[in-house]
Amino acid sequence: MQQGGLWGALVGAAALLALSAPVAAYDQLVEKQEFLLEDFVTEQGASIAEVRVGWEAYGELNEARDNVILICHFFSGTSNAAGKYSEDQAQPGYWNAIIGPGKPIDTDRFYVISSDTLVNLNVADPQVITTGPASIDPATGAPYGLDFPVVSMRDFVEVQKALLDSLGIESLHAVMGASGGSVQAMEWAAAYPEMVPRVVPVISPGLDMPPYVIGLLKMWNMPIQMDPNWNGGAYYDGEPPLEGLSNALQLVTLNALHFDWADTTFGRAPAEKDGDPKAAFAAAYKVEAGLQASGDGRAATTDANHFLYMSKANMTFSVAEEIERIRAKVLFIPAEGDMIFPPFLSDRWAEKLRAQGNEAEVVTVTGPFGHLNGIFNIAQAGEAIADFLAD
Amino acid sequence: MQQGGLWGALVGAAALLALSAPVAAYDQLVEKQEFLLEDFVTEQGASIAEVRVGWEAYGELNEARDNVILICHFFSGTSNAAGKYSEDQAQPGYWNAIIGPGKPIDTDRFYVISSDTLVNLNVADPQVITTGPASIDPATGAPYGLDFPVVSMRDFVEVQKALLDSLGIESLHAVMGASGGSVQAMEWAAAYPEMVPRVVPVISPGLDMPPYVIGLLKMWNMPIQMDPNWNGGAYYDGEPPLEGLSNALQLVTLNALHFDWADTTFGRAPAEKDGDPKAAFAAAYKVEAGLQASGDGRAATTDANHFLYMSKANMTFSVAEEIERIRAKVLFIPAEGDMIFPPFLSDRWAEKLRAQGNEAEVVTVTGPFGHLNGIFNIAQAGEAIADFLAD
Repeated sequence: MQQGGLWGALVGAAALLALSAPVAAYDQLVEKQEFLLEDFVTEQGASIAEVRVGWEAYGELNEARDNVILICHFFSGTSNAAGKYSEDQAQPGYWNAIIGPGKPIDTDRFYVISSDTLVNLNVADPQVITTGPASIDPATGAPYGLDFPVVSMRDFVEVQKALLDSLGIESLHAVMGASGGSVQAMEWAAAYPEMVPRVVPVISPGLDMPPYVIGLLKMWNMPIQMDPNWNGGAYYDGEPPLEGLSNALQLVTLNALHFDWADTTFGRAPAEKDGDPKAAFAAAYKVEAGLQASGDGRAATTDANHFLYMSKANMTFSVAEEIERIRAKVLFIPAEGDMIFPPFLSDRWAEKLRAQGNEAEVVTVTGPFGHLNGIFNIAQAGEAIADFLAD
Repeated sequence: MQQGGLWGALVGAAALLALSAPVAAYDQLVEKQEFLLEDFVTEQGASIAEVRVGWEAYGELNEARDNVILICHFFSGTSNAAGKYSEDQAQPGYWNAIIGPGKPIDTDRFYVISSDTLVNLNVADPQVITTGPASIDPATGAPYGLDFPVVSMRDFVEVQKALLDSLGIESLHAVMGASGGSVQAMEWAAAYPEMVPRVVPVISPGLDMPPYVIGLLKMWNMPIQMDPNWNGGAYYDGEPPLEGLSNALQLVTLNALHFDWADTTFGRAPAEKDGDPKAAFAAAYKVEAGLQASGDGRAATTDANHFLYMSKANMTFSVAEEIERIRAKVLFIPAEGDMIFPPFLSDRWAEKLRAQGNEAEVVTVTGPFGHLNGIFNIAQAGEAIADFLAD
């Protein structure tokens, strides 16, 4: 099985499939389920009449209901962390390499649960169930648009908490997540310290969103808001802002990768159809064409307002003031070459946690993918994860 | 004198002036001069009837005309590497800390010359003289727009060569430059190896533009091309694409800086005028407002087409195939935390040059500014530069 296939699934572009590595599949089909939460009140006090999110699980819930590992998904991710919904799904979930029977997150022992967040980006993915600006406001019968309330990582966690409550789950063995998922995991550790003895933040900012990344997020939002089709968020009756969305997703992709990836996947070759970039103003390089195809492909299933709301939830994240509440031991897994959340952030926050008495360790994954080494090369940390979860 | 002032001059935003460090001024007023080159033929064979570029010099040309150091400017820079044009200029040139009497680039010994490039961005800066899409095409009496031929780093060098020819200068003691200026310096070393015994590429990609940075440059161009006022480059009769240009310059600024800069300059504070970002969709953080003010300020003196042409000249840069022509010894000066041209690029190319017998050393500058440590903290490499130029 090709790592390139997973990458292709993530970025939606056959042009980007140059690298490969072995991945073994989760061995059972996965069932996507819907959780309905009525009359949800956000952290800021706004009411949402009906919250619907998708969720899935791997393994069996034991009788004591205390063998649960919660996985939170990243910015552009979905609940599909492992396995496939059907035999013909091209690639299994993004962390399939570490979730399954006998794997580091051992589904013979653990009940692993993963849900779509509020304002999930992939609104047009038939497997995704989420609630956000693209959802129908029951009060009006039309999509909320920007009337949807601003939501926070704490709100994401509260929806997950209600899902766990509905299943009679009162404690978690661990909470894990990559990137934006690591943010939810740390929010969990601060919000429900008595429920969360272990946290595994992978490619993580630590306990707050760094100001530099707030700047990056502003720039990711920018092309959407420049697109006249965005229309202040009111595009559900017309053409969606696909050009802006494609450009936003291209920025995400580029920031999430690395020099080595670009060297290996594209090199300095021109995109042949356009002629010589040295001679023609409009002639592009392969790396440009690859980014364009990736963004265009992903834009087709992404909602622009959901992107902006997800960006906002990331910007506002901080549990730095709540650090003393956190009881969990923490395994940070940063990635070499990560230019969104560089490894020094994990080191910095591990040190602060240790200084107040928490156990905190840092294990770094490597590879050519920058930030996305935390997805594609997570198996490198498999033994560290297994050890961390063992006791 | 405040480093913050220099930063402010570079990014045009008083909001960004948090950091300070001592800088001593070049001690004489600088005179900007114009060089006219008629019937210039580009690397690709296109003719430009009249090329005009600005230039300036510090120190005295000796009788043998062999004490010349050429300084090439960066992407958004100008010829003003040191000193001031008038007493009331807010800040001296960008490398003033290392150019002057008794300084590492000692103007008591060297004649230091610096010119505006072709397609210089700062078309509306009254001190800048350049030729590009915003210039009047003598054949039509109207601005060239996208009819201006694509130009390359080699073309920048040929214009500089013609300037030196006009001054009777047949050899160079050294060629130096930061970022896009380092690119011109390496192009010089490959184009005129017999003239260039020493090269100092600061915050440099090495001998070609990495594919990853071609991707970054595509994304920098994107907002300009999304702006309806850009109009395929034909905006000289109407409103310029200031929104796109501001966004492009914000991307440049953010990519050229670093986490530490954002922490120190802004932290996680909200931009007060907008309310609480956790409650209001449109409420921003200070880092967002700072970037916006910076981009808006710089857009006022920048030409959008020149930006795109400068970006193209950077994308197409490669002298990797000509490495064997290079005779110069090379002092690479990368910067800690540089996310445009990370230090490993300097190490990689220094090794390749040493492998073919060139002397090549690497001295790294540090600080909170990422890429821009190569501008703001260049004095850290002062002794290494002085030693390199001494023999």
